Amino acid sequence: MYNDYPSRLLEQAVEALNSLPGIGRRTALRLALHMLRQPEDSVRRFSESIRSFREGVKHCKVCHNISDTDTCDICADSHRDQTTLCVVQNVQDVMAIENTRQYHGLYHVLGGIISPMDGIGPADLTIDQLVQRVAEGGVKEVIMALSSTTDGETTRFFISRKLEPYGITLSAIASGISVGEELEYTDEVTLGRSILNRVKLN
Amino acid sequence: MYNDYPSRLLEQAVEALNSLPGIGRRTALRLALHMLRQPEDSVRRFSESIRSFREGVKHCKVCHNISDTDTCDICADSHRDQTTLCVVQNVQDVMAIENTRQYHGLYHVLGGIISPMDGIGPADLTIDQLVQRVAEGGVKEVIMALSSTTDGETTRFFISRKLEPYGITLSAIASGISVGEELEYTDEVTLGRSILNRVKLN
Repeated sequence: MYNDYPSRLLEQAVEALNSLPGIGRRTALRLALHMLRQPEDSVRRFSESIRSFREGVKHCKVCHNISDTDTCDICADSHRDQTTLCVVQNVQDVMAIENTRQYHGLYHVLGGIISPMDGIGPADLTIDQLVQRVAEGGVKEVIMALSSTTDGETTRFFISRKLEPYGITLSAIASGISVGEELEYTDEVTLGRSILNRVKLN
Repeated sequence: MYNDYPSRLLEQAVEALNSLPGIGRRTALRLALHMLRQPEDSVRRFSESIRSFREGVKHCKVCHNISDTDTCDICADSHRDQTTLCVVQNVQDVMAIENTRQYHGLYHVLGGIISPMDGIGPADLTIDQLVQRVAEGGVKEVIMALSSTTDGETTRFFISRKLEPYGITLSAIASGISVGEELEYTDEVTLGRSILNRVKLN
């Protein structure tokens, strides 16, 4: 549907929006027409903020997180525990962990996860750079905060093997029942894991 | 969630995307990070196509549809029936009707629908311009192709009253069961309407 656009400019804007993941042509058209109802200035600012983000944003040369500067704010913060690295898949995961306010060490952003199905191997990630960071010394613990999926486990296993020679503590975030979750509705694999990984109370 | 962005540029891009209707912060973040994985050139083209659309697109001075030129392609097409106007709410409706390939007259785009709940009155729409077009002569029929909602009916009624003095044919698109629809699952109001508006076969 919507084959004939009344305007080439509209068609190009719709095609641009439609190229974004999860945005179909109908939604793209709705978004474009929404923009037409906004002040020209605000759409110009929209367009400009996308362009300057894409052109200006960097990856931190230490942890590979997204940053406006060569070294990100977290890596540059001398109050943070420099001896602990938390390995995560992507930026969203850094943000999610930061939001917990429970972690005060540094990060290492892999930029993805080993996924043979998607053709993503260790060389596509920043694993070599992680090994390099550990090899340089000063790191006492590496916490792997990866998704509890097959790909996550594979990646965790691969990284563990790579880091083993350095004699540091390797850990992984706990898996178990969610806080506030009813036991009755917890899936059995998670429940089983939560029993195996039980925490001593005394 | 996601309160602390690791980059101001990222935050601005997320805020821009988040300002679009139906795009929450999480989706906006996902879209921004998707753009980061695209070539800089393609994101620049994306940004540019949005800006040039907003700055360059016009409304046809005859039918008020979106257009790249002062008069849109439909109004400028002398092969189309100049005596019939189809009144629609917006651009999408023009595109939907064009896609049926069943209509060969001209359009009149209201730019909305009378909606007291949303504070949209006749003066916010192009109703005066429609009356003007009819008053200038040459129009024999006005087909109202408005949604079958209370607001649609109100608008239809209002326009009919305004156009009555000109002695032209006024019509509205038929309402009834959808093609391919099972009678059993048709709502009773639609079904009732389809009986009242039955079509003679002989």
